[in-house]
Amino acid sequence: MKNIGILLFNNFETLDVFGPVEIFGRLKDLYHIEFYSLEGGVVTSTQNVKILTQKLSEKDQFDIFLIPGGMGTRKEVDHPEMISTISDISSLSTHVLTVCTGSALLAKTGQINGLSATSNKRSFDWVVSQGSKVNWIKKARWAVDGKYYTSSGVSAGMDMTLGFISDVHGIDLARKIAYEIEYTWQENKEVDEFYLQDFKQN
Amino acid sequence: MKNIGILLFNNFETLDVFGPVEIFGRLKDLYHIEFYSLEGGVVTSTQNVKILTQKLSEKDQFDIFLIPGGMGTRKEVDHPEMISTISDISSLSTHVLTVCTGSALLAKTGQINGLSATSNKRSFDWVVSQGSKVNWIKKARWAVDGKYYTSSGVSAGMDMTLGFISDVHGIDLARKIAYEIEYTWQENKEVDEFYLQDFKQN
Repeated sequence: MKNIGILLFNNFETLDVFGPVEIFGRLKDLYHIEFYSLEGGVVTSTQNVKILTQKLSEKDQFDIFLIPGGMGTRKEVDHPEMISTISDISSLSTHVLTVCTGSALLAKTGQINGLSATSNKRSFDWVVSQGSKVNWIKKARWAVDGKYYTSSGVSAGMDMTLGFISDVHGIDLARKIAYEIEYTWQENKEVDEFYLQDFKQN
Repeated sequence: MKNIGILLFNNFETLDVFGPVEIFGRLKDLYHIEFYSLEGGVVTSTQNVKILTQKLSEKDQFDIFLIPGGMGTRKEVDHPEMISTISDISSLSTHVLTVCTGSALLAKTGQINGLSATSNKRSFDWVVSQGSKVNWIKKARWAVDGKYYTSSGVSAGMDMTLGFISDVHGIDLARKIAYEIEYTWQENKEVDEFYLQDFKQN
């Protein structure tokens, strides 16, 4: 049984968390999910979801540490205790997954300097500014470099999670989950239909 | 400002709720979301998400009443207080949206007798057994009949929610949200790639 620790903070983006949670949560025999925050207690998403969390310690380590994005990241990148805790846990954990602007928090720690990563398209410049030594890939549904998986915006976290499951357990299991949740999985992490797309021109 | 009441019960399916919440939650000037349960307090999803809820009253009425699915529905269809509360609130609310097996709970009330509805493909026969007078449509990403919107399994709730927003506010707003969350929206409710698909044969 692998343990998944999910980091929450106020104004996290709802689907960044619950897309991956839906997918990992279907593998109850393989993964156990717990939600954490720096202080513990109730954390509220941008979409007004109030979640109970446990208090995180910098000594925690997980098989999978998941960091979501959302407007809250704009504040948290300047929160030294948050960044040092993410840094410690990321270095101790077996895999680290980020969704959307969660990669800005990870980049700020310096843990992915020199590694490839991606993020939300609409906040890309801001994310890049949080880690100038990261090899940022703009055209990617998700990116993998060693133990770090980083996804593009919001819904891309589901594709990344299925990609992670495919890498670890084989593509048949990932496809089975996508089928069960009636989700059209973009299986190729390099196919990114949202790259440089300008909505207003459509 | 329209109010959205989301019904939770233990063992609800995580993404059935938080897919629609992500989408409605992006329209903060138009919609206010609150979470409810029969008893109030903490409700836990099948994927171990613990959500704070308010206590529901049979007198509550919402602009949008959303009923998710999940394994918990198997128990709740035989819970008279749950079914009578859903019946009362559904009749008072302006719109009622269900995701996945949430349509079984709605069907059990009798409120959609004679109306068209859909549900999760893998649980379809069980759902049909909860409301023999409903016009069940198996091949549908989602179905609309009057004030009732019912979606197919899990992820289809996101397509339905975007479809609802398209119907009420126009397709441009729905497409804008899909773009912002980097989600590939199936815009046509009659296109259902999961209809009669047998995963094992792929």
